[in-house]
Amino acid sequence: MIATNGYAVQSATTSLAPFGYEHRQPGENDVLIDVQFCGICHSDIHQARNEWGNSLYPMVPGHEVIGTVASVGSKVTKFKAGDLVGVGCMVDSCGQCTSCKDSEQQYCERGETVFTYNSRGKDGKLTFGGYGNHVVVDEGFVLSIPKNLDAAASAPLLCAGITTYSPLKHWNVGPGKKVGIVGLGGLGHMGLKFSHAFGAKTVLFTTSASKIEDAKKLGADEVILTKEEGWAAKHAGSFDFILDCVSADHDVNTYLSLLKRDGTLCLVGAPENPLAVTAFAVLGRKNFSGSMIGGIRETQEMLDFCGKHNIVSDIEMTSFGKVNEAWERVLKSDVKYRFVLDLKTL
Amino acid sequence: MIATNGYAVQSATTSLAPFGYEHRQPGENDVLIDVQFCGICHSDIHQARNEWGNSLYPMVPGHEVIGTVASVGSKVTKFKAGDLVGVGCMVDSCGQCTSCKDSEQQYCERGETVFTYNSRGKDGKLTFGGYGNHVVVDEGFVLSIPKNLDAAASAPLLCAGITTYSPLKHWNVGPGKKVGIVGLGGLGHMGLKFSHAFGAKTVLFTTSASKIEDAKKLGADEVILTKEEGWAAKHAGSFDFILDCVSADHDVNTYLSLLKRDGTLCLVGAPENPLAVTAFAVLGRKNFSGSMIGGIRETQEMLDFCGKHNIVSDIEMTSFGKVNEAWERVLKSDVKYRFVLDLKTL
Repeated sequence: MIATNGYAVQSATTSLAPFGYEHRQPGENDVLIDVQFCGICHSDIHQARNEWGNSLYPMVPGHEVIGTVASVGSKVTKFKAGDLVGVGCMVDSCGQCTSCKDSEQQYCERGETVFTYNSRGKDGKLTFGGYGNHVVVDEGFVLSIPKNLDAAASAPLLCAGITTYSPLKHWNVGPGKKVGIVGLGGLGHMGLKFSHAFGAKTVLFTTSASKIEDAKKLGADEVILTKEEGWAAKHAGSFDFILDCVSADHDVNTYLSLLKRDGTLCLVGAPENPLAVTAFAVLGRKNFSGSMIGGIRETQEMLDFCGKHNIVSDIEMTSFGKVNEAWERVLKSDVKYRFVLDLKTL
Repeated sequence: MIATNGYAVQSATTSLAPFGYEHRQPGENDVLIDVQFCGICHSDIHQARNEWGNSLYPMVPGHEVIGTVASVGSKVTKFKAGDLVGVGCMVDSCGQCTSCKDSEQQYCERGETVFTYNSRGKDGKLTFGGYGNHVVVDEGFVLSIPKNLDAAASAPLLCAGITTYSPLKHWNVGPGKKVGIVGLGGLGHMGLKFSHAFGAKTVLFTTSASKIEDAKKLGADEVILTKEEGWAAKHAGSFDFILDCVSADHDVNTYLSLLKRDGTLCLVGAPENPLAVTAFAVLGRKNFSGSMIGGIRETQEMLDFCGKHNIVSDIEMTSFGKVNEAWERVLKSDVKYRFVLDLKTL
């Protein structure tokens, strides 16, 4: 077994605190990874606090994991000791259903996706994530990190990156398309970078004039302030695609009104309460859809794209000593735009 | 001017009653039609009672209009006196925007679609529909009715028919696809007929076991009773497309759970209140969409398809003497499956 040190929450109401635990002895298809960096995702907090109602404790969060390969099993062919690798939200799935065969393991039709933490592996044991100094992962769920990218700033690509890249690709965002990004946070700032890199006219929707300058640096061609009277009517029916990165309650009908016929509003945040969608908002053949992270093949494609275009996240480094404080700041959106834990501070 | 007799409502709270009025003198592009039959659509009642908040009075409803051409203007080329023709929900539009140029006039981007009634023509005058013995319509909005079809039973094709045909075509329903129809009324019964004719495996969702036999006659391969405990879990993730014909409040999240990845639930009813859609219901790349009638070119295509496949609506003939009673029965879904007014009873 692999003795591991990390930070865990022991219940929905306790803070993160040091915790010692074990990962399985690596098998012939496994990669043992020494974690170097782990991004802090809002969903770490949702799950730690059981806000989605499915939490398992003790919980070691973290699914934006960057590390170096310590050792590999006898049948591992894609990785060797010393390689810089990443692990995202998933570490296993059924492998047999249509979605898994399409390398869309996040949509496993048997519901057997094994998540990197707060999940049970095929051995029935809890999985523990990147807020700890080792992970053991089947090589099919390990990603290569391009050598030219900054390792720490690559961590958020494993969740925030693929979560925005995948829908932008799926709905064919590119030259000649007008694309809106709602909300400038961890997801939104990656949405701006990818939409811009894909060649689309990229527009940020925000309530805050203070974000205009940053948004333009990140790739926005235009920023629309959604607090101005009558802002929506000016832009009605003009967007091909809108990526909605907001996790709080909000009015999606207004954004649907901005779509062209056959346009799509895609939710990537997960608001807790149902959203009220009026029939008339969709009757003009407007699509209200959603997307969840991305499959392993597409995650590697995204990382390779980032390597080629030198795209990483904008991050603020933090330490385990400040991790609970960092979580509070995430809840206040007080970070540009993603915290990354340095495992050396453990 | 064309003196016309029909039935109108004079306010949101009055019943239909006899009314004399005038249509414009037909211009060089106009077709003067002697109305023979007019279907009764639920939206006639919604609008008569100002339930969509946009009603104009006096209102002569009716947008499922079948009649014979009485005369044509000097520039009319497609029709001649004596032809059997139809008029659906629209009689004009801007003609210049992308949607109009695509013959999707119902989505006119300038908002200049002129509806057959409860609307103002380009001359600023109220339009009056098929609950009267004449209509005057630009030939671009007049449809040819195949000679082999029963004239009265063709009337509902002009709204219920195109409203279901258009989304089934748009989302590529055909052989190898599994398609659900929610609700067996005026729209649902046409949805069954078209989905079956397109070669899809066609499933009706209904709360009522008494509808099983009828549904199978209309084209359903399978009927799923949605009052049975645990019905939804059995069919999770198995549908390519679901046509939602329900106009009342209902739980769309359950139907979204029945879709495959990249499947679409398309609303064609118009529930008065917003529908509560949970993020998790769409995050599996499920599309919640809607569709509104269909364009003129596609309506003619649908009529020609009906001619070829001998498809009409299942109707109950009624008379102006019983029209208010018929409306009450529509509200109770007490009709199989569409009332048609015979203009001879005027």
